[in-house]
Amino acid sequence: MTADSFPASPAWTALLARVHEINDLEKAAAVLTWDRDVNMPPGGLDGRIQQMTTLSRLIHTSFTSDDMGALIEAAAADSDGAAYDTDGAALVRTLRRSYADARKLPTEYVMRRTAVSAGARGVWEKARAANDFDRFRPWLEQVIGLAQEAASLYGYEDEPYDALLDKYETDAKTADVRALFRALREALVPLRQAIVECGRKVDDRLLRQDYPIDGQQAFARYIAVAAGYDLERGHIGTVVHPFSISFGQGDVRITTRWYPGFLSPSVFGTLHESGHAIYEQGTHPSLARTPLARGASMGLHESQSRLFENLVGRSRPFWQAHFPKLQSIFPAQLGAHSAEDFYAAVNKVEPSLIRVEADELTYNLHIILRFELEQAMLSGALRAGELPAAWKEGMQTLLGVTPVHDREGCLQDVHWSSPSFGYFPTYALGNLYSAQIFESALAQEPEVGTELAAGRTGALVAWLREHLHRHGKKYTPAELAVRVTGKPLGHEAFVRYVTGKFADLYGLS
Amino acid sequence: MTADSFPASPAWTALLARVHEINDLEKAAAVLTWDRDVNMPPGGLDGRIQQMTTLSRLIHTSFTSDDMGALIEAAAADSDGAAYDTDGAALVRTLRRSYADARKLPTEYVMRRTAVSAGARGVWEKARAANDFDRFRPWLEQVIGLAQEAASLYGYEDEPYDALLDKYETDAKTADVRALFRALREALVPLRQAIVECGRKVDDRLLRQDYPIDGQQAFARYIAVAAGYDLERGHIGTVVHPFSISFGQGDVRITTRWYPGFLSPSVFGTLHESGHAIYEQGTHPSLARTPLARGASMGLHESQSRLFENLVGRSRPFWQAHFPKLQSIFPAQLGAHSAEDFYAAVNKVEPSLIRVEADELTYNLHIILRFELEQAMLSGALRAGELPAAWKEGMQTLLGVTPVHDREGCLQDVHWSSPSFGYFPTYALGNLYSAQIFESALAQEPEVGTELAAGRTGALVAWLREHLHRHGKKYTPAELAVRVTGKPLGHEAFVRYVTGKFADLYGLS
Repeated sequence: MTADSFPASPAWTALLARVHEINDLEKAAAVLTWDRDVNMPPGGLDGRIQQMTTLSRLIHTSFTSDDMGALIEAAAADSDGAAYDTDGAALVRTLRRSYADARKLPTEYVMRRTAVSAGARGVWEKARAANDFDRFRPWLEQVIGLAQEAASLYGYEDEPYDALLDKYETDAKTADVRALFRALREALVPLRQAIVECGRKVDDRLLRQDYPIDGQQAFARYIAVAAGYDLERGHIGTVVHPFSISFGQGDVRITTRWYPGFLSPSVFGTLHESGHAIYEQGTHPSLARTPLARGASMGLHESQSRLFENLVGRSRPFWQAHFPKLQSIFPAQLGAHSAEDFYAAVNKVEPSLIRVEADELTYNLHIILRFELEQAMLSGALRAGELPAAWKEGMQTLLGVTPVHDREGCLQDVHWSSPSFGYFPTYALGNLYSAQIFESALAQEPEVGTELAAGRTGALVAWLREHLHRHGKKYTPAELAVRVTGKPLGHEAFVRYVTGKFADLYGLS
Repeated sequence: MTADSFPASPAWTALLARVHEINDLEKAAAVLTWDRDVNMPPGGLDGRIQQMTTLSRLIHTSFTSDDMGALIEAAAADSDGAAYDTDGAALVRTLRRSYADARKLPTEYVMRRTAVSAGARGVWEKARAANDFDRFRPWLEQVIGLAQEAASLYGYEDEPYDALLDKYETDAKTADVRALFRALREALVPLRQAIVECGRKVDDRLLRQDYPIDGQQAFARYIAVAAGYDLERGHIGTVVHPFSISFGQGDVRITTRWYPGFLSPSVFGTLHESGHAIYEQGTHPSLARTPLARGASMGLHESQSRLFENLVGRSRPFWQAHFPKLQSIFPAQLGAHSAEDFYAAVNKVEPSLIRVEADELTYNLHIILRFELEQAMLSGALRAGELPAAWKEGMQTLLGVTPVHDREGCLQDVHWSSPSFGYFPTYALGNLYSAQIFESALAQEPEVGTELAAGRTGALVAWLREHLHRHGKKYTPAELAVRVTGKPLGHEAFVRYVTGKFADLYGLS
């Protein structure tokens, strides 16, 4: 695990001083965000908004100044000819790109986007609770308008959605994602149908018993460490909507929610967020305090969370190894069950209405629906008022179920209360990446499979660190796919994985 | 409860925009401090030091710029002739003073102080745990050096310690504090001696039983609210060394520690920090996001914590009202005891080694020791390596006890991990203020005493809010002493209070 570091010339020292300053302000804002969600009392909100607005304004002003552009170009000139793989060349690439992007958005637009998103978020929460889409509709119209404006401001070559997708998955093209998702859909829909029709039922009632929260917390810590999350450089907080967040390589936190009557959210939420955190903890120290010290894209970030949540965390050997610990914490609830019972329960396939509760197989179909609807809204083909009907139709086609209420339909996700079109597809890209990366790890390093068969992840984490994590954001996702797995991202590994797993579980031929 | 607010002219708008920005950065830094002590994993320290150093540099640069001076003077000119009591005049006074002080400290010094303090803090924690003064000694040397530098940079008329004391207790003079403390010592040492010699023993074993932490936490929340702390605008965190901190009037937090075998630290620590928080929660909203929205001085701040911890929280009627609740949480531990047993136990006088566990009477002797040692370290008369011996000698003289271990001696307090010399004496000043203010409240508003006799604090909190809290930092401590109590700060009220209380408890004539 070697890495170079940045040049030491005056131009580089000046650039890095600015980069470090902006990084520190961003991390301070991240601490304020985490604290808001984990600890802040209700009365603190107004003051917190003021503090976060002030930090954002200072960061934006500093990063988009002419001065910043001059610092980047002076350092670039100073290290002209540095190899593509060096930290310096990668930082220049990343800064040039994000500087150009940030300067494309006028302050007026950014302020309007912030105001509309804040308003839409509040209305969305109320509209969802009241199952009242019409209340949200005028805000969704504004959000669509903002997304269309952003696509124009950023610019694009082929289609508007490219301009937005690029912000979450650098250089990704909508046409490529569309082709990947089409192939995925063609494999998953028949598999989903075969499972529904095979008649075999998995009993998952053991997951829905009385599980006291202190026991869940103890097991979450155990299983996070078992996955490879370093708690000396981490912390598990409690929130309503779980997330992971990094304040630097030495302090990467996750959050979990605890349902006293349902075990899955805390166990698999913890494994999911641990995967994100393991990625951030593994970036190379030479990248610290720069925008390279983070995951390469949303899709690759999600690949690591899904890898630990699903490919490791919903595997048979993992629970053969760790179920006894869970049993020892909850003897009354699980004493009469086997690891195999638990493995089957946590892998039950059932087409359902809610994305975040979906199984591994049908989850991607939820994403494909949102990807298609976003493109239609962005192009103007689908108007805000037409969303509920289009949603129901899409769910029936893709999943064979239709929501009665919009709160279980197009109002279920927070994402469209801001113009973050392009984010949803990265969830499914993450699933595809996770399977392709996992196959490579098993093929390249035999010790990975040997250890996983005993429920241990040390060799896997080491392999991921060496091949993926340490690079941070030095490369684009497409570059990393080839670098890590030897080929571009495809749907094949994921389809092989789910077909093998669920054919076995459901006795399909 | 009325207050004016700031002028709305362009000059004032410009000044307030800057003041708000600096306030927001300071509050962000405060969140980072709180998080460091409450949540941060060990690996986060390096990154956190960088973030806090960057914030303090930006704050210092912005606040000490020529520009800032021009903003202050333009606003001052714009509201020339405004009455002394107006918010505007008070803000100009405060800003002029702190601007002049801050300009005396070079940015390089401030950054060095932040970095050394952050490092020393971590080492102090480890050194205390390991009872290893030598590990902390080189950091203490740096801290002393920083304090000496600060005294020179600020400048002083009479003696170096004045320059530092003034930062915690505006306009206070070391000579005056020395005289107050001499009078106090002359009253307290004989009283302490009389109690030791009277032969009456108070049994406080009931405080040292097995008290499960979840019960302590439940009672802490109960008693904090009973004291008057608003938890809708507050939060109780867990730390090693408790403190309170404000992120704005709507989010004022306290921290507590929980000892499973000793009840007092959580109960009286919570009451103490609640007193600080009640003060901050009571500043007038018109002062929000300015340096006036805080306590007037450390001494006055401590007066409020000690008032709720001791004058209210160790009073007989308070426990007659609230002991049943404590009994209901800990029936096995306290079912056989009376409120009077508890009242006596929590007021036991016993010369001891640890300041924060000291009784009301001997507490001030701990402070007098630190006040004397700080002056000696500042003058160079006492070197870092000589501290442990000087500490032991002073303890023997003032309290008649000598620590065996430095962790119960000179390593016990966090304060000397930063150059905050001048802070310690404000604890004893706070005790003197608390008694003098409490006497005034009882004398001026009969409802205060009537309510307290039933364990209720509403009238007291309202009186304090009206006479002290709402003013925030608009006046100096000396001005407030006269405004609130009609006379300058003296030792007499405190001596009357402890003499009366302990003569009764120990049957002294």
